[in-house]
Amino acid sequence: MNILDIITKKKNGKNLSYDELKFVFNGYLNKEIPDYQMSALLMAITINGMSMSETLSLTDIFIRSGEVYDLTKVMDYVVDKHSTGGVGDSTTLIIGPMCASLGLHLAKMSGRGLGLTGGTIDKVESIPGFNVNITEEEFFTQVNNLGFALSSQTANLVPLDKAIYALRDVTGTTESIPLIASSIMSKKIAAGADNILIDIKVGSGALIKNYADAEKLSEWLISIGEAYKRNVRTIISDMDTPLSYAIGNSLEVCEAINVLHGKRCPLYTSCIEIVANLLSMAKNMDISEAEVRAEQVIKNGEALKKFYEFVSAQNGRLKELEVAKTIVPVRANRGGIITKIDALGAAKLAAKLGASKMHLDDEIDYTVGLMLNVKVGDTINKDDVILNIYMNKPVQFSQKDFDFIGIE
Amino acid sequence: MNILDIITKKKNGKNLSYDELKFVFNGYLNKEIPDYQMSALLMAITINGMSMSETLSLTDIFIRSGEVYDLTKVMDYVVDKHSTGGVGDSTTLIIGPMCASLGLHLAKMSGRGLGLTGGTIDKVESIPGFNVNITEEEFFTQVNNLGFALSSQTANLVPLDKAIYALRDVTGTTESIPLIASSIMSKKIAAGADNILIDIKVGSGALIKNYADAEKLSEWLISIGEAYKRNVRTIISDMDTPLSYAIGNSLEVCEAINVLHGKRCPLYTSCIEIVANLLSMAKNMDISEAEVRAEQVIKNGEALKKFYEFVSAQNGRLKELEVAKTIVPVRANRGGIITKIDALGAAKLAAKLGASKMHLDDEIDYTVGLMLNVKVGDTINKDDVILNIYMNKPVQFSQKDFDFIGIE
Repeated sequence: MNILDIITKKKNGKNLSYDELKFVFNGYLNKEIPDYQMSALLMAITINGMSMSETLSLTDIFIRSGEVYDLTKVMDYVVDKHSTGGVGDSTTLIIGPMCASLGLHLAKMSGRGLGLTGGTIDKVESIPGFNVNITEEEFFTQVNNLGFALSSQTANLVPLDKAIYALRDVTGTTESIPLIASSIMSKKIAAGADNILIDIKVGSGALIKNYADAEKLSEWLISIGEAYKRNVRTIISDMDTPLSYAIGNSLEVCEAINVLHGKRCPLYTSCIEIVANLLSMAKNMDISEAEVRAEQVIKNGEALKKFYEFVSAQNGRLKELEVAKTIVPVRANRGGIITKIDALGAAKLAAKLGASKMHLDDEIDYTVGLMLNVKVGDTINKDDVILNIYMNKPVQFSQKDFDFIGIE
Repeated sequence: MNILDIITKKKNGKNLSYDELKFVFNGYLNKEIPDYQMSALLMAITINGMSMSETLSLTDIFIRSGEVYDLTKVMDYVVDKHSTGGVGDSTTLIIGPMCASLGLHLAKMSGRGLGLTGGTIDKVESIPGFNVNITEEEFFTQVNNLGFALSSQTANLVPLDKAIYALRDVTGTTESIPLIASSIMSKKIAAGADNILIDIKVGSGALIKNYADAEKLSEWLISIGEAYKRNVRTIISDMDTPLSYAIGNSLEVCEAINVLHGKRCPLYTSCIEIVANLLSMAKNMDISEAEVRAEQVIKNGEALKKFYEFVSAQNGRLKELEVAKTIVPVRANRGGIITKIDALGAAKLAAKLGASKMHLDDEIDYTVGLMLNVKVGDTINKDDVILNIYMNKPVQFSQKDFDFIGIE
């Protein structure tokens, strides 16, 4: 097989066989195919697309590049959830304990954040002592006993996806539905759950820019799931507005606890929807009954109790959780109605405070961030506090930093 | 400016501005843009195309990347010729002396061959003593005095094209009409001639696969020429069959001398056509009169005399030109009509003998090659000699090596 023939075939819009895809992608992982040839092929795929058959082949090649788990052999009701990226998204910390309270098992292998949208691992690491580097045995034992565990040990799960994603990120080839679909599904299938919910975020700053593409991605995810006999459901949700009032690691942990206490907010609604879908899939339950059950474990405090057990099990000392001591209120420069809260703008402000890594060698300040005081549609007066900034290091602000909140 | 924004723009089929193209291509030459990003953009250009305005921009950026000559300031009737690659193509060695005999000036900067189609420089280097590394001053002085000179000193002529071509060659992005057009025209314009003939080779093994693409390329070459006020004409010719009976460096020099002696063959016809076009462009002459004049300098021996002067001027000792001493006749395994002589197949056989460099560190054997005894349409008997192999090192032949000649 010849790499140039394969690139040329895809350049001309033809379909690649399983063996051709395997030759190139495994060759790239083994450093036999140089990055400039891989990036040329990725661009040809991004522009000319891939058939479902090619996407299934690629997903399979991705899965086989690393370790594969079949959790259904050792536990019942195994669920998993993936979000295509959001701002202020502490969903995992809420739905994990909820699922565990409902007899489901969520073995969550998660990444660290890079760029504006923080990772779940960064959020829990704001809890002093919290250990995300647990062994595989500890991890699965905890999932079995407690129902939920969180690990950052994903090095061996689809290593090919890691390598390809890093290249796509710097070559303008992220916006390809077949590539996104095989990237997501290979990781979910290798992680071993049989009930999978994918939250597709749509927005100007998201990978998926519009609802038509989100619908298309949804179809592909479900079809790949069918091929591997997994239940897959999707939720398509807006990423233009932050999911919660808190943006910043320890602030988001606090917000997750608030939601587990029953605080009503868009994040609460979203978590109920996700858990209800997972429960309905895993236990073949009517969705409205599942919703009732999901709300129940919040109301009766079981989910909150599970959260505390989960944090303790991974050595977190929640009482020592800190937020930054310098709190600067930001006031509206005019009265009116809140017309927008741009998620990316909010994330940029949090990043400026030190809440996320913009480069691999940056240090995260877990205690900084912002707490929004308003939501879209609220009527406010001039000088009302619209958000509070939690900060440590001196930061120069400009009017532009706050433009993400629109008042009209 | 941001490289990812630029790649994404072209990925989405939008036009790039002069400044955007300059940012990426000059950045690549300065090693600020890595090859994997450049190859992603080249693939997007290859698939989504470029407008004429973008192609003119890119040609200009290419030209400005190195030295630019304006030969029309120092001499009259300056002509240039380019072929998009052929097998058995010693055209330059024939048309150079012909042009010189007709009062035209041809300052030919030529490359070495890599791969199956040999370069003109390799051919003249089969003449002992021939010096292609002459200084710029010697080069232009010889063109002025003799009418024709040949130099391999092209390092400073469009260095950007060299860099991009090397990357296109290994990333499946050679077959792009706008990229081919700007590559050819930037070199011809930088080399300084005002009358340019481009011989577009069409065939299964050529860069241009079909006549429709050749016509399109022709239009683009002429349009770019117009933008730079150069006369550009194109000839579209078949590359499926070798241009001459000889394939191999010193064998092709011998064949060029035969043609200059008046030997009638497709190579003769092709050279008359090229020279007639150059003459008619440069001296604004009717093409049929130009053809008569072109044949005249063969008939009266002037072109042959110029050829000897040209070889002497560059220190070549033609009397010492050698061909391999071991000559192996190849006989037809059946009688019939010659239905095809595949140029690439012939070139592969010559390469097996050592006639061309397949890798940068290969050594060329100038004396080996093959002399065809037949042409398409000839009727032959079983055991007739269809070609003679000139060889030195021991080579294992198989029936497949001779499949390039079809007999039916």
